Amino acid sequence: MVRPERGRHGTPRRPAEAPARGLWLYGRHAVEAALANPQRSCHRLLATAEVLARLGAGAKRPGLEVLTVERAEIDRQVGADAVHQGLALSVAPLPRLDLRRACAPEPGRNLVLMLDQISDPHNVGAILRTAAAFAVRAVVIAERRGAPLGGAVAKAASGALDLVPVVEVVNLARALDDLAGLGYWRIALDGQASQTIDAAPEAENLVLVLGAEGEGVRRLVREHCDVTVRLPIAPAMESLNVSVACGIALYALAARSGQADAGAS
Amino acid sequence: MVRPERGRHGTPRRPAEAPARGLWLYGRHAVEAALANPQRSCHRLLATAEVLARLGAGAKRPGLEVLTVERAEIDRQVGADAVHQGLALSVAPLPRLDLRRACAPEPGRNLVLMLDQISDPHNVGAILRTAAAFAVRAVVIAERRGAPLGGAVAKAASGALDLVPVVEVVNLARALDDLAGLGYWRIALDGQASQTIDAAPEAENLVLVLGAEGEGVRRLVREHCDVTVRLPIAPAMESLNVSVACGIALYALAARSGQADAGAS
Repeated sequence: MVRPERGRHGTPRRPAEAPARGLWLYGRHAVEAALANPQRSCHRLLATAEVLARLGAGAKRPGLEVLTVERAEIDRQVGADAVHQGLALSVAPLPRLDLRRACAPEPGRNLVLMLDQISDPHNVGAILRTAAAFAVRAVVIAERRGAPLGGAVAKAASGALDLVPVVEVVNLARALDDLAGLGYWRIALDGQASQTIDAAPEAENLVLVLGAEGEGVRRLVREHCDVTVRLPIAPAMESLNVSVACGIALYALAARSGQADAGAS
Repeated sequence: MVRPERGRHGTPRRPAEAPARGLWLYGRHAVEAALANPQRSCHRLLATAEVLARLGAGAKRPGLEVLTVERAEIDRQVGADAVHQGLALSVAPLPRLDLRRACAPEPGRNLVLMLDQISDPHNVGAILRTAAAFAVRAVVIAERRGAPLGGAVAKAASGALDLVPVVEVVNLARALDDLAGLGYWRIALDGQASQTIDAAPEAENLVLVLGAEGEGVRRLVREHCDVTVRLPIAPAMESLNVSVACGIALYALAARSGQADAGAS
């Protein structure tokens, strides 16, 4: 019996070169972004004749097998419920990224997002899309927790899964300390916080930590943050959808640092 | 043969007292909000013994039939894919609302939201939830277009379907003119706009119009708006998820008028 490689904390690690079987991306934006991403290994493209004609040279990559098929064949591959828009792509997972390298601060503002046990693929996908829209440096998630980065996430991300670096780490609390070592201030978003997001530090390097709906950011993770803040919402609602909350928080942090820049110039 | 009642423009109108058959809400927040809403007619509650014990007096309403059932029975009623959390409620649609009455400006800020052909129930639900969180006066939708206000919308709305007035109108363009007559400034959100949301008028009464992903706000609707603005996002992403965009836009408008208030005091 082959024993799986184990990480520092005794948890089984995914091999660096996991077999690509079963990892299918589908939908126009998700597939086109994967085809355009040099870091992504693409194995087989299934597409209708009409879609292939539209893709043109975009469907050509070294080693990519391209099959013209009927829609029903794609239904069979990714499930009839998947809104695949006539194309599906078999891929390998993206290469593993190193936290310190992916998040090393660059001149200007550096925003990093961390997701603590967020599992709904629609939410994870929408969050990746928002992260790309706000030029987030990287999204940090716990290894093998939350939503797997598969077809449903990629579809909801509308291409962002192949645009935003996603860093999988063994331990979120330790990752937060590593980020602090790189000069990041750590902000947990929590509906129960006493201060609103206006109280977040006006620093160039920020990590925003989001928790699952209901449970929120876990205590152990929150204790490794510098400040816990909430969004200013009406008391009638207990909380927002987590991807909506993420968008508002990123906008609020970006708008504020924009004002700070404007004030400094 | 009974001819359906017809509205001003010859389109069949839903009778004011539509039969409640088939309209089931499910999930803890959605059902509890419906039970607490005096405007909502509730017919039959299916719940597990455990959930009923938790609900206590919250499950008692005049005329409500309460049945203690196994989870599998609720699966059969609302579908096994629905995350029903052990309870489902058969209800009537909410009474129709009059646009002018629902949106008549009150002292202070009045925000109204209009959805143009947004059909995904997860997005409509998340938007209602966000609307409640930002104390939006009403959400205006086109009659019989977009997502029906059923179980999937209510679940994603997490109770907000029974908190935020939803006004169904025959014609969105005419509704915009009616709102202008009430003193509202009309803002269309569109990724192609030349100005960002900072250029929106600093008025107390605002309607924010959101379009479907892809198509955006239709030209005919946009032409009845005073200004078209976009969110300031990075060029790498073409657009945001519509419910995320809605959250950011409402926050931006609310934060700005908050600053205006602070400046005026």
